[in-house]
Amino acid sequence: MRLSQFHLRTVKETPADAEVVSHQLMLRAGMIRKLAAGLYTWSPLGLRVLRKVESVVREEMNRAGAIELLMPSIQPRELWEETGRWQKFGGQLLKIRDRKDAEYCYGPTHEEVITDFARNELSSYKQLPVNFYQIQTKFRDEIRPRFGVMRAREFLMKDAYSFHVDDASLGDEYRNMYDTYTRIFTRLGLKFRAVFADTGAIGGSASHEFHVLADSGEDAIAFSDGSEYAANVELAEAIAPGARAPAAEALRKVDTPTQKTCEDVAALMGIGLDRTVKSVAVWGDDGFVLVLVRGDHVVNEVKLSKLAGLADYRLATEAEILEHLGAEPGFLGPLDPRKPIRIVADRSVDAMADFVVGANENGFHVAGVNWGRDLADADIVADVRNVVAGDASPDGQGTLGIARGIEVGHVFQLGRKYAEAMKCTVLDMAGKAVTPAMGCYGIGVSRIVAAAIEQNHDANGIVWPDAMAPWQVAVCMINPKNDATVAAAAETLYRELNAAGIDAVLDDRGLRPGQMFADIELIGLPHRVVVSERGLAAGTFEYRARTASDAEQLDRDALFAKLRG
Amino acid sequence: MRLSQFHLRTVKETPADAEVVSHQLMLRAGMIRKLAAGLYTWSPLGLRVLRKVESVVREEMNRAGAIELLMPSIQPRELWEETGRWQKFGGQLLKIRDRKDAEYCYGPTHEEVITDFARNELSSYKQLPVNFYQIQTKFRDEIRPRFGVMRAREFLMKDAYSFHVDDASLGDEYRNMYDTYTRIFTRLGLKFRAVFADTGAIGGSASHEFHVLADSGEDAIAFSDGSEYAANVELAEAIAPGARAPAAEALRKVDTPTQKTCEDVAALMGIGLDRTVKSVAVWGDDGFVLVLVRGDHVVNEVKLSKLAGLADYRLATEAEILEHLGAEPGFLGPLDPRKPIRIVADRSVDAMADFVVGANENGFHVAGVNWGRDLADADIVADVRNVVAGDASPDGQGTLGIARGIEVGHVFQLGRKYAEAMKCTVLDMAGKAVTPAMGCYGIGVSRIVAAAIEQNHDANGIVWPDAMAPWQVAVCMINPKNDATVAAAAETLYRELNAAGIDAVLDDRGLRPGQMFADIELIGLPHRVVVSERGLAAGTFEYRARTASDAEQLDRDALFAKLRG
Repeated sequence: MRLSQFHLRTVKETPADAEVVSHQLMLRAGMIRKLAAGLYTWSPLGLRVLRKVESVVREEMNRAGAIELLMPSIQPRELWEETGRWQKFGGQLLKIRDRKDAEYCYGPTHEEVITDFARNELSSYKQLPVNFYQIQTKFRDEIRPRFGVMRAREFLMKDAYSFHVDDASLGDEYRNMYDTYTRIFTRLGLKFRAVFADTGAIGGSASHEFHVLADSGEDAIAFSDGSEYAANVELAEAIAPGARAPAAEALRKVDTPTQKTCEDVAALMGIGLDRTVKSVAVWGDDGFVLVLVRGDHVVNEVKLSKLAGLADYRLATEAEILEHLGAEPGFLGPLDPRKPIRIVADRSVDAMADFVVGANENGFHVAGVNWGRDLADADIVADVRNVVAGDASPDGQGTLGIARGIEVGHVFQLGRKYAEAMKCTVLDMAGKAVTPAMGCYGIGVSRIVAAAIEQNHDANGIVWPDAMAPWQVAVCMINPKNDATVAAAAETLYRELNAAGIDAVLDDRGLRPGQMFADIELIGLPHRVVVSERGLAAGTFEYRARTASDAEQLDRDALFAKLRG
Repeated sequence: MRLSQFHLRTVKETPADAEVVSHQLMLRAGMIRKLAAGLYTWSPLGLRVLRKVESVVREEMNRAGAIELLMPSIQPRELWEETGRWQKFGGQLLKIRDRKDAEYCYGPTHEEVITDFARNELSSYKQLPVNFYQIQTKFRDEIRPRFGVMRAREFLMKDAYSFHVDDASLGDEYRNMYDTYTRIFTRLGLKFRAVFADTGAIGGSASHEFHVLADSGEDAIAFSDGSEYAANVELAEAIAPGARAPAAEALRKVDTPTQKTCEDVAALMGIGLDRTVKSVAVWGDDGFVLVLVRGDHVVNEVKLSKLAGLADYRLATEAEILEHLGAEPGFLGPLDPRKPIRIVADRSVDAMADFVVGANENGFHVAGVNWGRDLADADIVADVRNVVAGDASPDGQGTLGIARGIEVGHVFQLGRKYAEAMKCTVLDMAGKAVTPAMGCYGIGVSRIVAAAIEQNHDANGIVWPDAMAPWQVAVCMINPKNDATVAAAAETLYRELNAAGIDAVLDDRGLRPGQMFADIELIGLPHRVVVSERGLAAGTFEYRARTASDAEQLDRDALFAKLRG
């Protein structure tokens, strides 16, 4: 491709309304243009990247034995009534009435349509297992679309649905898809993690999310440095600490007139934050509960809500706190409440000795607190905190780190929920009608583009992994108008690179070098070659990798060797 | 691909609700499955064909210098208000309200969106000419969706839009697209014609439709056997006939008691239909008009309505006919009307001598009628008939034939209509803001699949042109369970064919030969190779082309030579 024959339109200024770096860079590189809230046109440049992702996904799905088909984007209400999701799916479902007043939705997902297809097309165990997939445009009417294509309303998705005569077969395909997703994200050159996930609203029995790691990710992920273990921080178990140490200090009151946080108290006392205990007052089914976690930990709401009586807990009001503990938040603790309370201690708190808590008296804390001696054991001892970096991995192998991630894929074992609701059956080997087990497997194709940028960029722009780059190498020419040999040599090099199977683009737009180089860096091509009069005189081309700080002068052979990798 | 690993599901019976052969065969071959009115899922088999078409279209569009992008399917009302089409487009526009009550439509076409893109992205003549295209899902809320994917509501379309600084450039690109469409349909192996077309509702100044020729086509097309000339019958000119012959017969009344049609009268009199004249009574702005065409011709309503005073003509009522001519339809003619009438004669009637017309007296016609002698020349002499097979081509080269066609492509010169309405301008070489001229170019990608079947089928099923076939060749095995060598040889042949770049599918489903062959014929693969015990013993494979009536026994080399074409 010659850039003069292409439509490339970059922008220098960072758009004011783009909050995240991928959105900013996609707009600056001219990859997308907003049509309306959550609706984007993919420009020729953007589409090249989108198609690269799509190709890798398609190739690996085919390699895994999945079979591509294409379902309509518009789906009739009747099918969604069969599964009860017409009501339950909520506001994200874009509902439509046609000219005959029949109701439809723009499909946000295709479980109903594929199950309808399956109940008509599949009749025997001989046709199973089968995994149908499509790469297709979907719509979710996000209440607050944002971050460009990261959370757009109309987006491109790969969705796959498998059907199985029994759970063992579903398990096999689930693993096959897990491995396929691993290959896809590896081929795309992304740093990612597969994490255990809550199955959430879609329901089912097992599920993993695939996250592209990026500091800007919405989700926090705990992962082991010694195994494949990874889980959402919400779900990762903080393993039980060792046995409690014996008491060594006497109980004493500490004057903390303005120290309302564990950090302030620890600083005042010159002790580690892990010697302090945070008291969080909540209200459960049976009334007031004080939750204790170490000063350097935070309460995990998901874990807490799984304890008896706390499924629907809320934070206690100041009035409730005063009534039960007699002090203001900042000085709360488990000792000497005014009224009876229940105490939930995180397992790490239960293992502490000589710790510091609020004194239930404004302006004071108590140090040298010990279980058994100064207060009774907690009513409930449980894992109620988020894991932190440095915790032991729950699988016993290695230490946890915390990373932020952007969800780009999801594999589910759906079980028989949809097949049952829609009366989809097949005959098994014995000739008996059985309800097939289903799996579903999604990849956010357009979202991957944004996630890749969140992970791979620098001050000058995007830094594409090879597999996603719109082109592998840019051939730039310096002052071609002054020297026809430069233009001719650049043209020749461009042709030879493409003939050698290296996807090169020729920057023949006639821009000044600074502007040209800024564009090429911004759009993130992995390699740049500069053809100049001086270089030609020396028999060399100037080569620079997008990730390198310096350029090298290479002769033709060395250049080709470098680009062939 | 091994069919055992694929999802193929054929049906023997012709579905009752499928009216046209392409719809019947696509359902029987299991290419599509209906989800709801005008909404179809493309099965794995159907999608393979759809993607072949899509690939050819994409390759040729790229070769022609068009640049692919991807616009949203959902479009905001505001843009459609700018061009006035929110109201004007009519019931086919599927209107949608989102959760915030903002209005959108599911795009049936993208002139508004691309013009919005252009007014933001294009600023200088240096960026022109440019031709953007996309291959994307569209929706038209057809009042009566039918014929399967031929007239579906959701469909796949290639739409392209070009922008030009002047009309000359638009003309160049129009020709480029015309040539590109010719290459696309030629590569797809379809018999087609590019025909002059009325621009219809979209507006503009020049337009051609591309029709796949098929007996079931909705449109009648006149085309020359001696040139590229082709036009909708509605628009094709019937060229002026030679000079009028001198009168040879005397005027005489003929008794035609029950002969109300030209056919009946000609049969009774033993003369050619082309000696009779049909009288059609209509009512125009200035009252009663009698339109005369030859007995073997039919009135062309489009041409007639272009005459002065006839823009909004209607057929005359029986009362009006009786009042003006004194007879019932079937015995009408231009002689001796009861009240003054205007007469419009087709040019071929004006050139007739000794012709037969109704006598304006029930039960009688008049023969030996001659202009000048028996009646005054017509008030208007014009081309008001449809052309018929055998007419001379209007371009003076060759003779017209009539064929039926299915519109699968359309090229328009839109002019400045959309750019003007949406205030899209670019700076020309002189630095002056000018409104760019636009062209638009559509191809019904999914419709092509159905049209190809209408053109290419026989009693046993589909007969794909090579470029559209899901696979080129089926490798079938006879009784593989009884002879492992047959299965092994078939497997080997299948692998070798694919290694040689011939897209082969292995039918390893273990069906009986009759069932297997019926399936392979039904799904229309161009070539079939049968591996059998007897063949292997003789060192041959049984080869049969889909279009051939007989099979041949070929050794391996001859088979490969045949399949390599």
